[in-house]
Amino acid sequence: MSEKISFFMKKYQDRIEDLLLRVFPSELENDPTVKASMYSLLAGGKRIRPVLMYMVSDMLHLDLAVVDDFAAAMEMVHTYSLIHDDLPCMDDDCLRRGKPTCHIAHGEAFALLAGDALLNRAFERVLQAVAADPKTAKAAAYFAENTGILGMIGGQSIDLASEGKKIDTGRLCELHEKKTGALINASCLIPYYIYAADNGENKELYELIHRFSAGTGLGFQIKDDLLDVQADASVLGKSTGKDQRDNKSTFVTVFGEKSAQKMLDDTYADVYNALDDLAKLGFDVTALRQFSDILQNRVQ
Amino acid sequence: MSEKISFFMKKYQDRIEDLLLRVFPSELENDPTVKASMYSLLAGGKRIRPVLMYMVSDMLHLDLAVVDDFAAAMEMVHTYSLIHDDLPCMDDDCLRRGKPTCHIAHGEAFALLAGDALLNRAFERVLQAVAADPKTAKAAAYFAENTGILGMIGGQSIDLASEGKKIDTGRLCELHEKKTGALINASCLIPYYIYAADNGENKELYELIHRFSAGTGLGFQIKDDLLDVQADASVLGKSTGKDQRDNKSTFVTVFGEKSAQKMLDDTYADVYNALDDLAKLGFDVTALRQFSDILQNRVQ
Repeated sequence: MSEKISFFMKKYQDRIEDLLLRVFPSELENDPTVKASMYSLLAGGKRIRPVLMYMVSDMLHLDLAVVDDFAAAMEMVHTYSLIHDDLPCMDDDCLRRGKPTCHIAHGEAFALLAGDALLNRAFERVLQAVAADPKTAKAAAYFAENTGILGMIGGQSIDLASEGKKIDTGRLCELHEKKTGALINASCLIPYYIYAADNGENKELYELIHRFSAGTGLGFQIKDDLLDVQADASVLGKSTGKDQRDNKSTFVTVFGEKSAQKMLDDTYADVYNALDDLAKLGFDVTALRQFSDILQNRVQ
Repeated sequence: MSEKISFFMKKYQDRIEDLLLRVFPSELENDPTVKASMYSLLAGGKRIRPVLMYMVSDMLHLDLAVVDDFAAAMEMVHTYSLIHDDLPCMDDDCLRRGKPTCHIAHGEAFALLAGDALLNRAFERVLQAVAADPKTAKAAAYFAENTGILGMIGGQSIDLASEGKKIDTGRLCELHEKKTGALINASCLIPYYIYAADNGENKELYELIHRFSAGTGLGFQIKDDLLDVQADASVLGKSTGKDQRDNKSTFVTVFGEKSAQKMLDDTYADVYNALDDLAKLGFDVTALRQFSDILQNRVQ
């Protein structure tokens, strides 16, 4: 990891960690649902979505303070989805980010409520942002669309309905475009919608950021599927080999490890192409290029 | 039920039923999460919260079309809370509105996702309303506050943490102010915030609607607790006697049936006083008065 990118990432990671510490009112810190929420929220996630959001915002010369509510909300939604996904009635997982999952540590009932509370609180933040600055209304609507049945929840629904079944390539791609891609996509395009509210729509810019985010989302999932068979659980911080065990359709179980690796490389070639084209428009993509390299080659 | 109120209620109930039929895009009608959501959403609820919202809106001479998104969102949040509440890790209930609960009919995993999808979709609606009319931003923020950890979820958290414990009167009231009261309160005050965006703040009006909604919320909960011991399960449409069985702190288990009945009467006396004062300000409270009478004397 280069000095420069590590400085970049730390700046954004510190910013989001600081925001996440204060997502609930301090008078509720002893509430068991708040405790369960904070347990998972501060369990050492990589903050990939907020970091992407901040990097794209910086590329577009936005005031990061305008993006803060969305960045916090995005990480809260991501965390709630993990808490609910890990529940016994879903993936029934006991290890996440190297720690016991929320329901193991806080019980199923409070884990369920913690997920609900995080999702609701995310929208409280987003609505506060809109009330403070009506120009963020379109970004907010896009956020909501991507977290719901048309986005992440829709992907989880397809995933669940596909368990133990063979699904075709188109359906597998739709599943992951929604389940993993939607939040990553929204993280990159929310800054665009805030930018466009001030500077007007710019179709070329939209298309390039969308190409970058679609590739990043797809690449992230393929990499995740590869790590499930390649990584060590102690490094990965979660159980490995569970896709095969759960009879899940993933890029590795459907196409095989070698083809999945080739798809990953092709996907990242497209990500770098999109960044090159953004650079030609005059945007500084140094941080995004280095972050993409980190994501492509991560070991956890 | 008088002819007049039955006409009033039917008008609002038809309006909300029509909205609820179309809360998900038609291309998703076969998605199993959407099916589970619609199963519970259309299970024949009384639509008390949307009806209250429409009645207060009519009292304030608002265009009901401006309120529609909020009315639909409110019923979606109420429904998701019932789905999650009924799950085995929470109340573990198998009967709701006279039908098998969502997880009995659709499985636990899809019931969990259905709740998440309804909560998220509710905020999609609210954000669409704000994007269409920025004057609704304050009402939207108030909605989000009341559905979350400061409102309904906070009440569920206290409820869960209190199971099997003796709690004092203050805590019991806080529990129900949040768990049941917050959504009823928001249903009555969202129209006020939309009204105030056009007509300016009116402290006296706010206080009176708040007194009415606080009494209606408290009265609703006391009545629910009374019905748990007084009603027939086949009329009530859900299991009875379960508060005692689950060792729950309710107005009946804490104060006894007779005292709870007296509290109900006193609470409704205050509700009618608030309505009388609203009438003195020139507002037509006929529908709200008759609806209060129905709520006070309901058998299910």
